[in-house]
Amino acid sequence: MVSFKEVSFVAAVTAALFSIGVNAVDNGLAITPQMGWDNWNAFGCDVSEELLLQTAQLIVDYGLKDLGYHYVILDDCWSVGRNASNNNSLIADPEKFPRGMAAVADNLHALGLGFGMYSDAGKYTCGGYAGSLGYETVDANTFAGWGVDYLKYDNCFNEGYAGNQQLSSARYRTMGNALNATGRPILYSLCNWGEDYPWNWGSTIANSWRISGDVFDSFDMADARCPCDGPDAWNCGLPGFHCSVTNIMNKASFIVSKAQPGGWNDLDMLEVGNGAMTDAEYVAHFSMWAVAKSPLIMGNDIRTIAPADLAILSNTAVIAVNQDPSGSSAARRWIYNTNGTDANGRASIQMWSGNLASTTGGTYSDMVVLLVNGNDATTVMNATLANIFVDSGPVGTAPQAQMSWEVRDLWANRMSSDEAASIIAASSATGNATAGYNATTVGSGRYNSTAMSYKEGLAANSTLLLGNVTTTVQALGTITATVDPHGAALFRLRALPTGSLRKRDEL
Amino acid sequence: MVSFKEVSFVAAVTAALFSIGVNAVDNGLAITPQMGWDNWNAFGCDVSEELLLQTAQLIVDYGLKDLGYHYVILDDCWSVGRNASNNNSLIADPEKFPRGMAAVADNLHALGLGFGMYSDAGKYTCGGYAGSLGYETVDANTFAGWGVDYLKYDNCFNEGYAGNQQLSSARYRTMGNALNATGRPILYSLCNWGEDYPWNWGSTIANSWRISGDVFDSFDMADARCPCDGPDAWNCGLPGFHCSVTNIMNKASFIVSKAQPGGWNDLDMLEVGNGAMTDAEYVAHFSMWAVAKSPLIMGNDIRTIAPADLAILSNTAVIAVNQDPSGSSAARRWIYNTNGTDANGRASIQMWSGNLASTTGGTYSDMVVLLVNGNDATTVMNATLANIFVDSGPVGTAPQAQMSWEVRDLWANRMSSDEAASIIAASSATGNATAGYNATTVGSGRYNSTAMSYKEGLAANSTLLLGNVTTTVQALGTITATVDPHGAALFRLRALPTGSLRKRDEL
Amino acid sequence: MVSFKEVSFVAAVTAALFSIGVNAVDNGLAITPQMGWDNWNAFGCDVSEELLLQTAQLIVDYGLKDLGYHYVILDDCWSVGRNASNNNSLIADPEKFPRGMAAVADNLHALGLGFGMYSDAGKYTCGGYAGSLGYETVDANTFAGWGVDYLKYDNCFNEGYAGNQQLSSARYRTMGNALNATGRPILYSLCNWGEDYPWNWGSTIANSWRISGDVFDSFDMADARCPCDGPDAWNCGLPGFHCSVTNIMNKASFIVSKAQPGGWNDLDMLEVGNGAMTDAEYVAHFSMWAVAKSPLIMGNDIRTIAPADLAILSNTAVIAVNQDPSGSSAARRWIYNTNGTDANGRASIQMWSGNLASTTGGTYSDMVVLLVNGNDATTVMNATLANIFVDSGPVGTAPQAQMSWEVRDLWANRMSSDEAASIIAASSATGNATAGYNATTVGSGRYNSTAMSYKEGLAANSTLLLGNVTTTVQALGTITATVDPHGAALFRLRALPTGSLRKRDEL
Amino acid sequence: MVSFKEVSFVAAVTAALFSIGVNAVDNGLAITPQMGWDNWNAFGCDVSEELLLQTAQLIVDYGLKDLGYHYVILDDCWSVGRNASNNNSLIADPEKFPRGMAAVADNLHALGLGFGMYSDAGKYTCGGYAGSLGYETVDANTFAGWGVDYLKYDNCFNEGYAGNQQLSSARYRTMGNALNATGRPILYSLCNWGEDYPWNWGSTIANSWRISGDVFDSFDMADARCPCDGPDAWNCGLPGFHCSVTNIMNKASFIVSKAQPGGWNDLDMLEVGNGAMTDAEYVAHFSMWAVAKSPLIMGNDIRTIAPADLAILSNTAVIAVNQDPSGSSAARRWIYNTNGTDANGRASIQMWSGNLASTTGGTYSDMVVLLVNGNDATTVMNATLANIFVDSGPVGTAPQAQMSWEVRDLWANRMSSDEAASIIAASSATGNATAGYNATTVGSGRYNSTAMSYKEGLAANSTLLLGNVTTTVQALGTITATVDPHGAALFRLRALPTGSLRKRDEL
Repeated sequence: MVSFKEVSFVAAVTAALFSIGVNAVDNGLAITPQMGWDNWNAFGCDVSEELLLQTAQLIVDYGLKDLGYHYVILDDCWSVGRNASNNNSLIADPEKFPRGMAAVADNLHALGLGFGMYSDAGKYTCGGYAGSLGYETVDANTFAGWGVDYLKYDNCFNEGYAGNQQLSSARYRTMGNALNATGRPILYSLCNWGEDYPWNWGSTIANSWRISGDVFDSFDMADARCPCDGPDAWNCGLPGFHCSVTNIMNKASFIVSKAQPGGWNDLDMLEVGNGAMTDAEYVAHFSMWAVAKSPLIMGNDIRTIAPADLAILSNTAVIAVNQDPSGSSAARRWIYNTNGTDANGRASIQMWSGNLASTTGGTYSDMVVLLVNGNDATTVMNATLANIFVDSGPVGTAPQAQMSWEVRDLWANRMSSDEAASIIAASSATGNATAGYNATTVGSGRYNSTAMSYKEGLAANSTLLLGNVTTTVQALGTITATVDPHGAALFRLRALPTGSLRKRDEL
Repeated sequence: MVSFKEVSFVAAVTAALFSIGVNAVDNGLAITPQMGWDNWNAFGCDVSEELLLQTAQLIVDYGLKDLGYHYVILDDCWSVGRNASNNNSLIADPEKFPRGMAAVADNLHALGLGFGMYSDAGKYTCGGYAGSLGYETVDANTFAGWGVDYLKYDNCFNEGYAGNQQLSSARYRTMGNALNATGRPILYSLCNWGEDYPWNWGSTIANSWRISGDVFDSFDMADARCPCDGPDAWNCGLPGFHCSVTNIMNKASFIVSKAQPGGWNDLDMLEVGNGAMTDAEYVAHFSMWAVAKSPLIMGNDIRTIAPADLAILSNTAVIAVNQDPSGSSAARRWIYNTNGTDANGRASIQMWSGNLASTTGGTYSDMVVLLVNGNDATTVMNATLANIFVDSGPVGTAPQAQMSWEVRDLWANRMSSDEAASIIAASSATGNATAGYNATTVGSGRYNSTAMSYKEGLAANSTLLLGNVTTTVQALGTITATVDPHGAALFRLRALPTGSLRKRDEL
Repeated sequence: MVSFKEVSFVAAVTAALFSIGVNAVDNGLAITPQMGWDNWNAFGCDVSEELLLQTAQLIVDYGLKDLGYHYVILDDCWSVGRNASNNNSLIADPEKFPRGMAAVADNLHALGLGFGMYSDAGKYTCGGYAGSLGYETVDANTFAGWGVDYLKYDNCFNEGYAGNQQLSSARYRTMGNALNATGRPILYSLCNWGEDYPWNWGSTIANSWRISGDVFDSFDMADARCPCDGPDAWNCGLPGFHCSVTNIMNKASFIVSKAQPGGWNDLDMLEVGNGAMTDAEYVAHFSMWAVAKSPLIMGNDIRTIAPADLAILSNTAVIAVNQDPSGSSAARRWIYNTNGTDANGRASIQMWSGNLASTTGGTYSDMVVLLVNGNDATTVMNATLANIFVDSGPVGTAPQAQMSWEVRDLWANRMSSDEAASIIAASSATGNATAGYNATTVGSGRYNSTAMSYKEGLAANSTLLLGNVTTTVQALGTITATVDPHGAALFRLRALPTGSLRKRDEL
Repeated sequence: MVSFKEVSFVAAVTAALFSIGVNAVDNGLAITPQMGWDNWNAFGCDVSEELLLQTAQLIVDYGLKDLGYHYVILDDCWSVGRNASNNNSLIADPEKFPRGMAAVADNLHALGLGFGMYSDAGKYTCGGYAGSLGYETVDANTFAGWGVDYLKYDNCFNEGYAGNQQLSSARYRTMGNALNATGRPILYSLCNWGEDYPWNWGSTIANSWRISGDVFDSFDMADARCPCDGPDAWNCGLPGFHCSVTNIMNKASFIVSKAQPGGWNDLDMLEVGNGAMTDAEYVAHFSMWAVAKSPLIMGNDIRTIAPADLAILSNTAVIAVNQDPSGSSAARRWIYNTNGTDANGRASIQMWSGNLASTTGGTYSDMVVLLVNGNDATTVMNATLANIFVDSGPVGTAPQAQMSWEVRDLWANRMSSDEAASIIAASSATGNATAGYNATTVGSGRYNSTAMSYKEGLAANSTLLLGNVTTTVQALGTITATVDPHGAALFRLRALPTGSLRKRDEL
């Protein structure tokens, strides 16, 4: 039997499931995928208090905090070892963090943000710093004492305690238990790169689990160091790194059903804004992560963000898909190879769709539809209602395929680069990162999820979340979009009232 | 050495094998594949006493009980947790089952049916309800106390106790031992989706074991969430779900020899009647499950069953193959790719054959022959005696290939839709589901396995089991059938008397 | 580093290796691959004292004993369970073995033959009889008490103790230790079908280990029940059965180096004489098993053996390759796909070569060369000295490739069917299976390895072992043979004296 | 997250990483890949004191010692078992080593060389001699007592303690702990052929780990006994042997990031000089091993070395790449199949590049670029700066791709065969292997790493290390080379001063 997000034929069932209120891990966090920023993709080991706090202030200033980007996550390379005279607790690097970690946490909390920390379920971190294997309790206590709100927990140097689900789950469960024992709610983010099928055992331990090697700032470039691809890519004993976004999305396609409130497939941090993809590619990347219900963790240098990238990261109509209360990932309905081979030797098109909470108050869930064009040429792509709703009945038998739907283009209302530039300029103009500037002041037309949650906003049919550019698709019809090379189209479908819906047993 | 169903060259050996009387699991159940109905495919979590009892009554009314469909199986989502003040026993959902489970069991037993229950060898069920891992004894006792006759035991949230045969078998053996300790015979149905080769260790624990991810109502549609296919599909670390019937039949092809009296390869519940396959496809689906000796568990809404589907599920000539006393699965003899690519991008034809108990009283077993057409066009298909009997000697050397055979078309006598409609109408007309109506009254020409077992009926050469439309195939000859797109032809071969059979050493 | 049979560049090293005298398993048996007969392939469970003793007498009468076929192996289905009042020891079936097993052993020993027994490292044997798992000591003692000389130890119903090398090796080691503890030398033949890489751990436990699922009487027919083939066939989690001889030979190709005195890759029992292959195919089958240093265990019905098959099994020039004192398997040098697709859809040619003990008294080993034609047409095949001697130096750099060689055709002196028929007739004519008839009387021109071991006969340059049909191949030359469809050519190369061999550093 | 050698976008980070000073294994050895000589490839088991000491003297005489070849490693087949009356310690073969091992060590130490020893983490060595499994402490103490400086630790006959990372790592860790406990720094070289992903756990135990089956003296010949190749070659449960150099380089391509100071991917001993590859192939082989940061262990007969081979092994510009203080492996940037199929049926070209320590004192690392031509024809090959620097930013976004670079051909200054011949002749002419002759006397123009380390020499911009044949490549330009069949081109790129480098955020 499939996991509990996949009860497909009976839409009304969804409510019943949640009446039980199972959150697999017991900390009450990540009911929707976590959002935030992590320094690794852009800065690697070059970390400091200054970097974190400057970035945090800009996250506030640019309105990103009020879009939901909550956690500021310090990645690897922050310690100088353990203090033998103090219970072997970890010591923060005094050069990088002269005031200590608790001070950083205090500042972040004062900004309304959460503080994310990094460690490793091994002898060393990937960067060669002290790892937490064997020190889980002392480290969890240290983190809680500092006011940490989030732990990314890596997998390097694990001393052979990997290679089967029992070993890996036990190793990660030890830290989970230690975090729970602190009494502080700490979001627990597994980072074992999809080894040993963490989607099978992660959800009772943690709030998310990586499903692949590290992402790279490329749409579809192959790299020998990320060796698993194709139809068996789910079975990857060497996750590696330098995985393209389409490689990771391919890996996600097999395990979408594992995403659930409280526990998410983590596709790795975003590369939006790191400079090596086109705007169309970043749009596709952000759309893919959103529909797969990946945590949305920005990975760029916020201090030098380009307006176009701020506009992508600020698209609340897309974020609202990711933060949808249904907590269910879209699934890939089809992928075809095509003739338009790109510079990396690849050519395919694919379509994903998935349930969203209903915004029409009716029986039928909203639906998200994603078309990704992996060709080197602009392509007219089609998504039939039969395929979009295949989980509710194949070959057009789903009741939903028999209905008409309002179609909203979720990228149509993307913020202009001019507006994004003005936000950036306004913040810079203050000359004072701690000034009272914030997004609610400047971006008066922007959505503020601090004031009104995505769930509430969707229930209120906010056009900032739903978009306002609409077309209609008729029963058993087709949605068509012209999609840029390496780009994507993203739609929300909302049920239209209908008096003549054929019942299922009439089909 | 192969398992004991595969003693091939010497037909007379079969009797010797069974003289030992090994039933691998000791509960004496499932000597032929279990039959029944399970709510999951059609209803998911939308379960209730009303659903089960209404369905049960119709199973009686439509004569399905008397065709062998014995177990009414309640699937996931029936509990509201554990009762800490009562030994942590599971609590049935009082809204769905207001009279409690024992009352349901009583009613089912009163109808002559068995009561199937569901749980999970993990922390939670797949639907997120309380699982039995760590509570095996208390749960087995609870089930036995309720009068449960059957346990489907799922695999979600197994806490990392999977990934090798030792872990999975130990986890499932714990419940098996607990069931045995209750003293009540409870058919034990493993549902770990083929992970860790349950066909290797399941037969000493249980009565059946799933071999794949969950079935989907499609003949051959690929879905990324059911990733294993092709020649290595037996090795599937991510069973997934949304597996087409041909995908599952492909997985079965590798392990047919593991089916044996008391322990069966479970190809998952039937999709017949769920609406997304053509009639030809359902005929093929039912034929495939029958010859592979899968449990035949209906998965449709019996309350709204269409006449054509009732006719498929009621074909006693096909069921008699499934329930044959030889307890041996057919095997795939060949599969070829062809040119007639269908809408799902597939095109193949395949032939299966297998031993049945002799109905001619002679030395030679009857034989079942299945031709499946995976093309998009009607196809004339051929099965040579040389290939049909290859297990008794390759390239036509089998003595059986040297003989002539009576060929019976097992779908020729399918009940008409008119007759099926009248059965349905008669039942509905009573207006009272508990009335005395039953199939022996209405369907006077139908087989009643309650009155006479399939074994007895075969021994008596009942034409309701053997069919009566016959042709003959000569020694070293070929059976030819014109097969619908995505359809199947199914034949029983019976040995014809012969005075000139060449001995094996004369070949 | 490779195992000790693979010291390749320096021919003179071989002697040094054996000076250590390591026999991995300590029982001193199987210094060359064991030979004998097993009833399974032809009779399955249809076993009896009568079958074994009749066959044994014919093995003596037909001279097969004096060719080295020593063990008469009783396979599965011989017991009726355990005797609770006698230490739970196994009970022989009193109908099949009315005088008990010790009497059978005594008779076999009186004929100069060894007695082979079967059991299983699981709860049941594959045929469903009592298995030895948990009863290793009592069963080993029983076998030793009966006078058993050989144990074939199967793998069915192993209760989940499989799936990694540790579990499988421990399970098989338990019986190995029990056998050793009896004090009786009992050849220990592992039959776990290549699961968990027994070639890695088998040699310190046992004398041979199966490497595949059960053989089938076919040259190259594919069967879904033997699913592993092609370049990854060494990694087979589902060994299955109905494996063709070329499928098994393919599996052997990866692990030839694991064969060593005292521990052999077991390619399974011979199918020669079982009727479904052509004479050319049986010649190829026997040649392949011989050069791969598989145990040579006849699997046919000796009582009805055809003259041509007796001639194959009696070819001492081929057996001498198998029993060569060097104890080193040939290796596959190349395999190519060709155009001559056969009825099973296959077409390839391959060449194997390997070291034999020198029969020329010189520095250089003899060499065996096998050409196998997998086409459907007679094919002229070539083997270059450069390829034959590639292990001693690639691309013709081997000193041996620079020399001239005498080439002996090992099938040229095959016994005529007339002669074989006369041997069979003579035996039958006695009318008394226990009479004094034996091969040394009748076949005066045949080799008698009882009187003179193969090692001695080779040292004495017996033409019965070397053949007498010779040609010569010059330095860097090519051996050419016209090979039947599905047939083989087999040659022994012997170094010719040479005055001008270029030294290696002159190349 | 990737391991700590892969911090890619911020070049300046490298220094930060090393400030922690993590050497994964604690013995302080192999800060750059170890260099030396091992007898196996050329001599197998034919070992003796005479062989080792003659070779050692020539290593000194030919200047190889002063190029860094430090360890003289005795491989398998040196013992005659254990001494039961002396703590079961190993006994050196008195015929091969009449003065004992300590005497050999003393002589090697007197020459300024290190002594390498061999044993096996199993019951026997691969050659069938006594293994160290269960004797780790006594053997480590014996080796330390003899003055051993290096242990190659093999994997044969490991008794089933393999097949997952936990078993293999524990087995190898036991010896590592025993070596550490001796107090003598002993370089620990794992030789488990890449089984169970030693790159994951090896670095905290040992100084290097083999990644494949044994190398063979061939550029790209396939051999059934080395079955893993292609895109899944990293997942090799049967490492085998007779692996070609391109097969091994392919395996390395997946795991280059695992190489780090103190712990290296070991591609196996060099075949240079063993006679079966062309000069171009040996150049490619040596270049590949160098850039992959494999240990460089000569495997030929030094006593009969050809001048051309001495010239290859003596190329300090190439060795300086291998011994670069950055300790980071190059990575494969691309591989393409081509049309120029060679005699082994293969045809591909590939490009590798990787960071080297800066020799320009600036911000930017030097870069090594390797082009390998696997065609059968001379090929003009191109490497773009965009691809070379892809790790610092894809598709030309790396700042380094925007710069101009000095390009140095690292094979341009290869020693002439005449000069190499004169070195050989001079040594031979002394007639006394222990005379005062050494490379610093004869090869006055040669680099002497004993006097000045590679790190120092690079810092001093020694042209013996950098080469002096230079060209220039402009920003976003392409390096072009005409490469021999099965040959390679190897370049060092050094940053040219530039006033107009575009900043990253300007791209």
